[in-house]
Amino acid sequence: MELVYTGKTKNVFKLEDGNYLLKFKDDVTGENGVFDPGANTVGLTIEGAGLAGLRLTDFFYSQLNAQGVPTHFIEANFEDATLKVRPATVFGKGLEVICRFKAVGSFLRRYGAYATEGQPLDAFVEVTLKDDDRLDPPISADALHMLGILTLEEYAILKERTIEISKFVAAELEKKGLTLYDIKLEFGRDANTGEILLIDEISGGNMRAYKGDTYIEPLELEKIMLAE
Amino acid sequence: MELVYTGKTKNVFKLEDGNYLLKFKDDVTGENGVFDPGANTVGLTIEGAGLAGLRLTDFFYSQLNAQGVPTHFIEANFEDATLKVRPATVFGKGLEVICRFKAVGSFLRRYGAYATEGQPLDAFVEVTLKDDDRLDPPISADALHMLGILTLEEYAILKERTIEISKFVAAELEKKGLTLYDIKLEFGRDANTGEILLIDEISGGNMRAYKGDTYIEPLELEKIMLAE
Repeated sequence: MELVYTGKTKNVFKLEDGNYLLKFKDDVTGENGVFDPGANTVGLTIEGAGLAGLRLTDFFYSQLNAQGVPTHFIEANFEDATLKVRPATVFGKGLEVICRFKAVGSFLRRYGAYATEGQPLDAFVEVTLKDDDRLDPPISADALHMLGILTLEEYAILKERTIEISKFVAAELEKKGLTLYDIKLEFGRDANTGEILLIDEISGGNMRAYKGDTYIEPLELEKIMLAE
Repeated sequence: MELVYTGKTKNVFKLEDGNYLLKFKDDVTGENGVFDPGANTVGLTIEGAGLAGLRLTDFFYSQLNAQGVPTHFIEANFEDATLKVRPATVFGKGLEVICRFKAVGSFLRRYGAYATEGQPLDAFVEVTLKDDDRLDPPISADALHMLGILTLEEYAILKERTIEISKFVAAELEKKGLTLYDIKLEFGRDANTGEILLIDEISGGNMRAYKGDTYIEPLELEKIMLAE
């Protein structure tokens, strides 16, 4: 089993059958020891964060697969905190697709002249480049197309899927009395068929969940969501 | 004649007939004494810059009006460096619509992972908010629509007009052996009819023109363009 990538919160191994294994770490993104799903740096290590992220990922992806949403998910192994996934290539050097239900974070930092904190945004989708050096700049459909990162047809699929998946996650949270403020998804192309797949994890590490006005930390989110 | 707005490079007066008068100043945008059309601060004062900007604006707008492009331009007065314009309201708190023929400036700062300096961009259009405090953030058609700044139909008009106007300016520069790298336009709604109008100036202050690899300063651009 070959280590092919060391990420901020996950390591990636290549399996002999052509699939990949994602090993979830206990490192979470943030700054100065404070968790922030929008941050580009590892802010702190929380014991159990990796397994909690994997359990939530399993919870959401199992249902998405059952609903027929194309994803890279094959199976989770809680013993060693790994996720087996299908091989996929990212768009360009990687995109983050953000779906916003409430105005917070970078949306407010950019568009605060036109939006107030917590304002409803009705599943608003935007795309940013994964580019730490350039602070993950937002990018339009036209620019993605012009720079050869994806086609306008692929963008339309990405946007539609993002809304569908994010609304499903929001509905699951709502069943537990939680509100989804925003969520960050990643997509790629199936390495064999070219089909657009949902990739990466879906966990507390890439969403902002609130109970009333109180932000719910990733580990707490896992406990609430997976409680019987 | 009432002063209604003091801008970085122009003051705006309201006329008794309902139109407005733009007084072109010799201040140009830039940083640390170096001219930069993309900067948000007045970097330096160049004697004659106001009149040069007005002369070029008159040169381009007279032809655009003759071609039937809706603009706010009525007439220029070179004696007192003023431009008489129709009343228009801006979109939201003002937008900048940028048309790019070569990758430089903020485009490269954002998307440098996918583009090289000077790379052709084929009249690529992007919109930024006029918001000095938030460093003029780029904004997508979807976000403009969602935030009530303009409709998707208005965005389509804006984009089409921007390409048309920018290609006209590029062709005029080409006649003098110059290359247009990028240009920043502003649009508004006619205060009486709601029609979308090209507003503000078109001069060296809001474009980057090159002769070969050499950047042409605004005053030099006016001399080259208006030489018999």
